[in-house]
Amino acid sequence: MDSKKPNRRRFLKGGAALAGLASGGARLANAQTQGTPAKKIDELIAYGERSRFVSSVRVPVAERHSPDEFGLTFHVLAPLQDSVGIITPSSLFYTATHRGAFVPDIDPREHRLMIHGMVDRPLVFTMDELKRLPSVSRIHFIECLGNRARPTHKTVQETHGLTSCAEWTGVPLSLLLKEAGVQNGASWIVAEGAEEVKGSSSIPLAKAMDDCVVCYGMNGEPLRPQQGFPLRLMVPGFEGIYQIKYLRRIKLVDRYYMTYDDYGHINADPKASALTHQIGPKSVITFPSGGQKLPGPGFYEISGLAWSGAGAIRGAEISTDGGRSWKKAELRSPAFPMAHARFALNWNWDGKECVLMSRCTDELGTVQPTRAEIAKYWNESEDKVRVRGADNSVQPWKIASDGSVQNGLS
Amino acid sequence: MDSKKPNRRRFLKGGAALAGLASGGARLANAQTQGTPAKKIDELIAYGERSRFVSSVRVPVAERHSPDEFGLTFHVLAPLQDSVGIITPSSLFYTATHRGAFVPDIDPREHRLMIHGMVDRPLVFTMDELKRLPSVSRIHFIECLGNRARPTHKTVQETHGLTSCAEWTGVPLSLLLKEAGVQNGASWIVAEGAEEVKGSSSIPLAKAMDDCVVCYGMNGEPLRPQQGFPLRLMVPGFEGIYQIKYLRRIKLVDRYYMTYDDYGHINADPKASALTHQIGPKSVITFPSGGQKLPGPGFYEISGLAWSGAGAIRGAEISTDGGRSWKKAELRSPAFPMAHARFALNWNWDGKECVLMSRCTDELGTVQPTRAEIAKYWNESEDKVRVRGADNSVQPWKIASDGSVQNGLS
Repeated sequence: MDSKKPNRRRFLKGGAALAGLASGGARLANAQTQGTPAKKIDELIAYGERSRFVSSVRVPVAERHSPDEFGLTFHVLAPLQDSVGIITPSSLFYTATHRGAFVPDIDPREHRLMIHGMVDRPLVFTMDELKRLPSVSRIHFIECLGNRARPTHKTVQETHGLTSCAEWTGVPLSLLLKEAGVQNGASWIVAEGAEEVKGSSSIPLAKAMDDCVVCYGMNGEPLRPQQGFPLRLMVPGFEGIYQIKYLRRIKLVDRYYMTYDDYGHINADPKASALTHQIGPKSVITFPSGGQKLPGPGFYEISGLAWSGAGAIRGAEISTDGGRSWKKAELRSPAFPMAHARFALNWNWDGKECVLMSRCTDELGTVQPTRAEIAKYWNESEDKVRVRGADNSVQPWKIASDGSVQNGLS
Repeated sequence: MDSKKPNRRRFLKGGAALAGLASGGARLANAQTQGTPAKKIDELIAYGERSRFVSSVRVPVAERHSPDEFGLTFHVLAPLQDSVGIITPSSLFYTATHRGAFVPDIDPREHRLMIHGMVDRPLVFTMDELKRLPSVSRIHFIECLGNRARPTHKTVQETHGLTSCAEWTGVPLSLLLKEAGVQNGASWIVAEGAEEVKGSSSIPLAKAMDDCVVCYGMNGEPLRPQQGFPLRLMVPGFEGIYQIKYLRRIKLVDRYYMTYDDYGHINADPKASALTHQIGPKSVITFPSGGQKLPGPGFYEISGLAWSGAGAIRGAEISTDGGRSWKKAELRSPAFPMAHARFALNWNWDGKECVLMSRCTDELGTVQPTRAEIAKYWNESEDKVRVRGADNSVQPWKIASDGSVQNGLS
């Protein structure tokens, strides 16, 4: 059972005495204490790796070949079914772009950020200059507006994988704007990235002065290239397209600017425009979720993620009967403003077919809507409702009597 | 200046029109928007990488060849000089062991955790069984008792790199112990890992029932092999050796058990034994720190990390005159119990020689001591003080008039 194979190099160097020590130990766990190949030791000292038994990976969005034939679209889903806690590992953080699929390979020594337009003192910063300024570190989610569950989706990675959460570090944008001196009449900023397609977004000045951060750090190290290395604008709670990667320019202007990135953010229908910018409140059960299988009746922790663009998550509820009744879930992680929160419910499955759902409430008291409520809002039938803007409807997971879990959307 | 090289594959597929689009864009930032090699696309979709311009790595402890000639010691320091925020990336998390340098390569399907000894119902859990139980996610630091600054150390990686901080997810140990039924008279647990050397630690039952967590998750994914994959005992605020990796056995006992891991935790000197188990309060300035260089006089953010084994960090102070006067620093991250907190002070350097120091206060009101205070406590001269137990003394960094930073210890 206990198949220990002392590493050859260690064995040769340390002598046979150690082999005796190892084999003399208790044989309780069936751990394979197999040595790391010697040639990799230096590499493992420098930068550790995950276990070869861990294979969780991102996958491209099925509806969009990724990268597409024009090399512009690159939508890759985070494996939420394997997630624990609230931090998404940087290597598994979702990424989505229409601005050029091939990740810009930016030398940070060459990168600049310009702040100009309706300011008293236009400024250009090097990365080194930005890093000398006062910084903050905050945990925030990002979610793509296109994060919509469809009946054809099989897993939570497919239904909800275009959101992730990380610790972000950088300079408050308000500090840079005050340094530049915002002129009277300025009411929007236009933030632009350095991709081949110069993507940009118009953001209200009030938001820019409130809680936006010009980030160079993510989860304790420099931003990853797929997340905008070396500089990204965090616009907490706003949809993903506002979180400008490869940030190189912020222009102060006196009106909303139409940009390449506009997917109907200006809309004559006040219902539709009300749904833009801000995300959620939204939640989803990550275990048990589509494609997973419960081995049999008994105790389980139902676990999920909740988030809101309007602030912190105050609570979450779980239904195990398709929405007829709801039980209060526990928050089992910190719940920061505009961050994922981990909720859970202790559950004894009786082995019968059932439908699991979750819904959350944010600090403004807004409750995540059901699909039926959204249908009523848009005056469409529930099976036909095409969710405009962000889809934050309740996600059902159907559990069959054999324990297999399927998407409950129809 | 703007050396854009459209990716060949994209270029061929997308046609020349896109090249025009790219070159027609503003040429503000000097970003190299060079494509990712096509052959790596699938890999980059699955699991993202850091930028080739980022080279921060861990280094072995200089005093200990790592791995040593017996393959037992493996001490690798986290690059705190490059740290931002409070999360340490899992690939850069420090690691230290005397229990076999070669990382156990454990198949989680074969791993078991046994709880036995003075319990009513001895239990053995598979990993799948543990993951069905109620879980919590908390941010905690770990620090090795051997994390001691010496005058010969040049960088903060060398002086303080044996501490890191992560989000940990797992089952509260109290839940497992209650399930097993702790018998009257049990007062300690002995926790054992699955390394070749069966390392174990004795932990007071009161601590085990308080806030210990049997962890399978770290920073949102399974524990890394160097951090104990698939299972690690978190003992918040206790020194690193108690955070048993590859956890396979917990025995309930009625007294302190001497183990392979004992480095004088039982000591006739009450002063010495009082210093065991719990870490801090401790802090260190990570920028500017040894080996870095300020490009010239002007504004800088002095930034550092503070932590305490006794609870949350309540505040930190910074001295820019070698400890004669202290200014209140700001906490610029959340400050969780037994977690790193990021503090900072806005500073205008006048270009003159000076000595920077930091000290912190935890929620019990305990203030980090200076080296002089520790010398007085042990009744030794300051230059000769050999710090017993954990060294949490104030770290000085000397800034020369050319901006270069050196270790201020002598």
